[in-house]
Amino acid sequence: MDHIDAYWRAANYLSVGQIYLLDNPLLTEPLRPEHIKPRLLGHWGTTPGLNFCFAHLNRVIRERDQDMIYIAGPGHGGPAAVAHAWLEGSYTERYPDVSQDVEGMRRLFRQFSFPGGVPSHVAPETPGSIHEGGELGYALAHAYGAAFDNPDLVVACIIGDGEAETGPLAASWHSNKFLDRRRDGTVLPILHLNGYKIANPTVLARIPTGELIKLMEGYGYRPHLVGADHEEMAGALDTAFEELAAYKAGDAARLPMIILRTPKGWTGPKEVDGKPVEGTWRAHQVPLPTVRENAGHLAMLEEWMRSYRPEELFGPDGRPVADVLATVPRGERRMSANPHTNGGELLEPLRLPDFRRLAVEVKAPAAQSSEPTRVLGGFLRDVIAANPRTFRLMGPDETASNRLSEVFEVTDKAWDAETLPTDENLGEGGRVMEVLSEHLCQGWLEGYLLTGRHGLFNCYEAFIHIVDAMFNQHAKWLESSQKISWRRPVASLTYLLSSHVWRQDHNGFSHQDPGFLDVVVNKKASVVRVYLPPDANTLLSVADHCLRSRDYVNVIVAGKQPVLDLFTMDEAIAHNTRGIGILPWASTDEGTEPDVVLACAGDVPTLETLAAAALLREHLPELRVRVVNVVDLMKLQPPSEHPHGMPDAEFDTLFTTDRPIIFNFHGYPSLIHQLAYRRHGHAHLHVRGYKEEGTTTTPFDMCMLNDIDRFHLVMDVIDRVPGLGSKAAHLRQRMSDERLRARAHTRDHGEDPADIRSWTWPGGVSAS
Amino acid sequence: MDHIDAYWRAANYLSVGQIYLLDNPLLTEPLRPEHIKPRLLGHWGTTPGLNFCFAHLNRVIRERDQDMIYIAGPGHGGPAAVAHAWLEGSYTERYPDVSQDVEGMRRLFRQFSFPGGVPSHVAPETPGSIHEGGELGYALAHAYGAAFDNPDLVVACIIGDGEAETGPLAASWHSNKFLDRRRDGTVLPILHLNGYKIANPTVLARIPTGELIKLMEGYGYRPHLVGADHEEMAGALDTAFEELAAYKAGDAARLPMIILRTPKGWTGPKEVDGKPVEGTWRAHQVPLPTVRENAGHLAMLEEWMRSYRPEELFGPDGRPVADVLATVPRGERRMSANPHTNGGELLEPLRLPDFRRLAVEVKAPAAQSSEPTRVLGGFLRDVIAANPRTFRLMGPDETASNRLSEVFEVTDKAWDAETLPTDENLGEGGRVMEVLSEHLCQGWLEGYLLTGRHGLFNCYEAFIHIVDAMFNQHAKWLESSQKISWRRPVASLTYLLSSHVWRQDHNGFSHQDPGFLDVVVNKKASVVRVYLPPDANTLLSVADHCLRSRDYVNVIVAGKQPVLDLFTMDEAIAHNTRGIGILPWASTDEGTEPDVVLACAGDVPTLETLAAAALLREHLPELRVRVVNVVDLMKLQPPSEHPHGMPDAEFDTLFTTDRPIIFNFHGYPSLIHQLAYRRHGHAHLHVRGYKEEGTTTTPFDMCMLNDIDRFHLVMDVIDRVPGLGSKAAHLRQRMSDERLRARAHTRDHGEDPADIRSWTWPGGVSAS
Repeated sequence: MDHIDAYWRAANYLSVGQIYLLDNPLLTEPLRPEHIKPRLLGHWGTTPGLNFCFAHLNRVIRERDQDMIYIAGPGHGGPAAVAHAWLEGSYTERYPDVSQDVEGMRRLFRQFSFPGGVPSHVAPETPGSIHEGGELGYALAHAYGAAFDNPDLVVACIIGDGEAETGPLAASWHSNKFLDRRRDGTVLPILHLNGYKIANPTVLARIPTGELIKLMEGYGYRPHLVGADHEEMAGALDTAFEELAAYKAGDAARLPMIILRTPKGWTGPKEVDGKPVEGTWRAHQVPLPTVRENAGHLAMLEEWMRSYRPEELFGPDGRPVADVLATVPRGERRMSANPHTNGGELLEPLRLPDFRRLAVEVKAPAAQSSEPTRVLGGFLRDVIAANPRTFRLMGPDETASNRLSEVFEVTDKAWDAETLPTDENLGEGGRVMEVLSEHLCQGWLEGYLLTGRHGLFNCYEAFIHIVDAMFNQHAKWLESSQKISWRRPVASLTYLLSSHVWRQDHNGFSHQDPGFLDVVVNKKASVVRVYLPPDANTLLSVADHCLRSRDYVNVIVAGKQPVLDLFTMDEAIAHNTRGIGILPWASTDEGTEPDVVLACAGDVPTLETLAAAALLREHLPELRVRVVNVVDLMKLQPPSEHPHGMPDAEFDTLFTTDRPIIFNFHGYPSLIHQLAYRRHGHAHLHVRGYKEEGTTTTPFDMCMLNDIDRFHLVMDVIDRVPGLGSKAAHLRQRMSDERLRARAHTRDHGEDPADIRSWTWPGGVSAS
Repeated sequence: MDHIDAYWRAANYLSVGQIYLLDNPLLTEPLRPEHIKPRLLGHWGTTPGLNFCFAHLNRVIRERDQDMIYIAGPGHGGPAAVAHAWLEGSYTERYPDVSQDVEGMRRLFRQFSFPGGVPSHVAPETPGSIHEGGELGYALAHAYGAAFDNPDLVVACIIGDGEAETGPLAASWHSNKFLDRRRDGTVLPILHLNGYKIANPTVLARIPTGELIKLMEGYGYRPHLVGADHEEMAGALDTAFEELAAYKAGDAARLPMIILRTPKGWTGPKEVDGKPVEGTWRAHQVPLPTVRENAGHLAMLEEWMRSYRPEELFGPDGRPVADVLATVPRGERRMSANPHTNGGELLEPLRLPDFRRLAVEVKAPAAQSSEPTRVLGGFLRDVIAANPRTFRLMGPDETASNRLSEVFEVTDKAWDAETLPTDENLGEGGRVMEVLSEHLCQGWLEGYLLTGRHGLFNCYEAFIHIVDAMFNQHAKWLESSQKISWRRPVASLTYLLSSHVWRQDHNGFSHQDPGFLDVVVNKKASVVRVYLPPDANTLLSVADHCLRSRDYVNVIVAGKQPVLDLFTMDEAIAHNTRGIGILPWASTDEGTEPDVVLACAGDVPTLETLAAAALLREHLPELRVRVVNVVDLMKLQPPSEHPHGMPDAEFDTLFTTDRPIIFNFHGYPSLIHQLAYRRHGHAHLHVRGYKEEGTTTTPFDMCMLNDIDRFHLVMDVIDRVPGLGSKAAHLRQRMSDERLRARAHTRDHGEDPADIRSWTWPGGVSAS
């Protein structure tokens, strides 16, 4: 226990040093104001508790040779994680400048929360972490994600009582119903009750202990109460690891968890300026705020730091002494150096079956229909079969609804609760994770990817906004990681957004929102990729591409309802490789300068654009129309803004610089302007898209409500191409009448006119 | 009990009719295919359970003369809520065409999920609802929000077991710790376990009952188990209402809740095509999917509908018979007509104190600093004092951090758990709601506003993305409500986003994200308003304006760190009224055509723009510079796009059509292009803003990392104004050097240079 205490004191000392000191790291001379940082930043309150956990977990790792990583939910306790990595030597291995000596300790202190230094929170820069604790709520979901398919791993997950109030965390406790005790590792939640958040007490610290125990039992855990005491913690951990072993062996039904109560800011100043600090919310950030200016505070700081007896912990050379290091594990057993926390080191490429085998046969473009996601389901089935331990498919109870059901030919949905005879496709080892929580799907997948595995998240398009904030944080993690040389690339996080805005006519307005793309494109171009494959074959090829990629967030928008097949597989691959291209068979410009460009992105807008092109071909055959389809949305940006961006010359060749462009877009129209405003032809760019009109109605009525329908597109062309004459004026009127006819039919019959439902490219054969 | 059963059967009959029938509503003749809708849409699975709850709650209302509303968490059970309103007569009161007779019943059936009709989910169109159940997770938070400050109200909240898996719902159970039994009403959660979501069993239906009871006890409730049985439900409700009364009286510590287990699709077809349906996930949507085409299914539908014995429930005229109506309450006691569910009917304007009294005295512009949110805190304090029962301030543990602490001079934070002697400002009746869950803050506030009260949500800017999806749904609710004549306008939902991207230098990259504005502007112009007041006085005036508004979502972005005071109160009001304006004292164009326009929106960008203007004035005095500040962001859009939009002529006058515009923006630059791309001067518009660069550093370094700093703005001007000559080239080099100097100072000293920190407009007096 002395060794644990020595390690703990050393970590606490190093934590305080990081918050306060520019110099004099070993306190070899009395503290003076110039040793103190001018801006005091950091969070002390949670830090001693984190250090306490690290110290005790290390003892268990050594005694059991346990493969273990930690997730520090209170990631604002950055000093703790950094101190831990430095004591374990892994910090110096990653950052040789920050050596394990006096000079290294000085650098360690100075760099913390300092310009040009390291962040105040646990971050990608921190060895041993897969979890940034800035935005709270995701610690436990990340922990479970890391544990999946790592049968020998224990993920110790420290959950702050502030974070425990968030929705995502409250739901995450139930992740135990999705854990497979044979194929997965385990999670040891440590609910750390220090009683306060920023300025308030926490709920779980202030409900009766009996109620808290019931809550944890209700969540399906065996709770163990621990106070601020080494013996209690060690005993509880020994019990918990016995229970984890029993759980793994099938001898115990429930995972253990620990409820650790310690004072906030434990071992810090008890009272400052007459107000209690230790054990109150006042310990949250910097307990002594004016050390440089206030001699009394300076003396308190020195007294506080000396209370850890640094002279017993570090040699005169600054190296931690043997007693401190006695509990530190070796090599990859160190939590700060465990390769699971730098998942790219463990990452193996997916075994990807040849997606071309799943290709839909296309004899003529736009002559037959397929359900793109159903076709993709066959590919995902084969991906799962070929990668039985390294790929998972996440979905909030929507995998079947999104028509990916072919995956169930080879796997089940993970489930470790009661099953009934009527259940289908539930079972241990299932590769499909279905829970009605987008937060859990996202959190599990992030944890799974960051520990070196692969996956895909399928979701209704509108409800992916539920994880906007999580996407932001994951993108930021990747943006930072890309700049850190020792962080190896991990598999991309790929979203498949289906049941999209244009085909939620039956569910109504609440289900109609294509705005996730707008959130995504705000993040760095080095990270984000957006694809809108217009048919089944392009979807297959895009999915294959995304599953091979690293360190990106890929967003694929693709429908589950039948859409026209446009490309043979070879054509689809070529179209995707360019990312954008002319559909010559739908165009009438014959390789000359067109009178108008009809551009489109997204399956339904493409269908309507094609139908408009056919109408124009029939009724205004002399008009030179060019149809351009965009698969890779980032092609629209200039190359200076995104690596996929097209050079202006290419853009100008495709879109012209002076002809009207009618762009029919899947999402909000402003996004196209945002991406293309720098282009020469932008003044002639007219974008149709979702303009927040919707209700429960029919698919074509949804198009008409938002003016993306074929008839309105023809009207747009006539309005924008000068000099078309009376024939065009006539056609315009007819289009307007067609809209009224379709609207009336819908109102009378409750479904779209048959000629619209079964439309195919003239001359082709209808598949419906 | 017979009356309850009759009501229940009637509601079930009407629900099935809505899903299936175009005609023959009373089954006066055998069902034929042409009586059936061509597209069968809707969700049957949850509907009979909802009807069961309504029927039983009505009995309680009548017996106790109870003021009660319901929240239907499984809002996809739209037919239930509509059937309920029709039986109660309130549907016909709102929609006289849908009369309580055969013809009305025919319309009721036909309109459901039909083009031009009503949505398939509970929606604003549904009388008696404040909750759209499309996106799941918010039912219980809405329920508590409705109960706050309604001491006599009971909010019955039906929670589906699918929804119960979401994070926001899992956190919402703890709302009971924020309820004041004397001043608030109560919530009766009814956890409806029908066992399945779309395609999967639910977690809470498949854990041992003992565990479920512990979970509910752990959440602080007294659970009552009820099966699919009238007697059990009636008995449990009687007990629960006794317990609610005891709770209100202080004689019981815990709120009751009910766990209701019924088969999914209860009373529907037991088996279809050889597969079990009732009691399985197959009952989720339309249990008989091909009734029009399949004579067997048609017969089953008729058998199913006749099983409710409609001839006993409705007279030949289609009116519900007396037995059915025996349990229906009268007038405003009807849950479908309770005025709390049309909050605008109850809404009283806030008593708003004169914000001018809080004005910061400004003798010269940009000569002194204030902390805008601290000043606002004084106003909010006075608002709270003047409206002790109709205004609440929500914040995820950030009210003090956002420097609104003056509110605690007159109120506390709501808290109904243990308190300790060191606690401050906790107590019953508190107007400030602090919980570390943005979801709860948002959900409570929505429930509070929709029932006719007022409030404000203060939040760290980056983390408001956590509720992107909730914002979307609330905005959609308002967009729809604005078109429904009987829905009276409610108070706007106003966000105060502070601790914003430019002043989270200390917390680092995870805390830096201004993208919520991009999410907001995608919603309809009739609903969204965005304000970026640049100083304390403009913030006061904006806040007053927002708190008076109705049916909007207002977003105010304002910092908590000191910024320069720019406007006297009178000037601030005038500036806000215009929404955009020239700062003549900072400009050198003297009313003539400028050489360059420096535009700015947001407090920090405005500060940097002013500093740049001062540098230009000093070093290039002959350059005619115009400084334009934008408070009301939607001014930038054309009037065709937003009611606040400026006419082109005004825009052109302010910004010119041919001079360079350097626009320094608070958020992502693309948003300004998105709003202004139609303007004549757009080709000359160059926007600076957040470009996703950040870490833990200093405030000015954050500006430099993103090129919004004064020095870079001067460089931008020099790069874009033609013909400035060698003096300008010299200045450009100097600006570049100044950036290096500032960077080096920061790296050496850990803080920004003193001349930057204390900068004021030349000639003014520094306040720091």
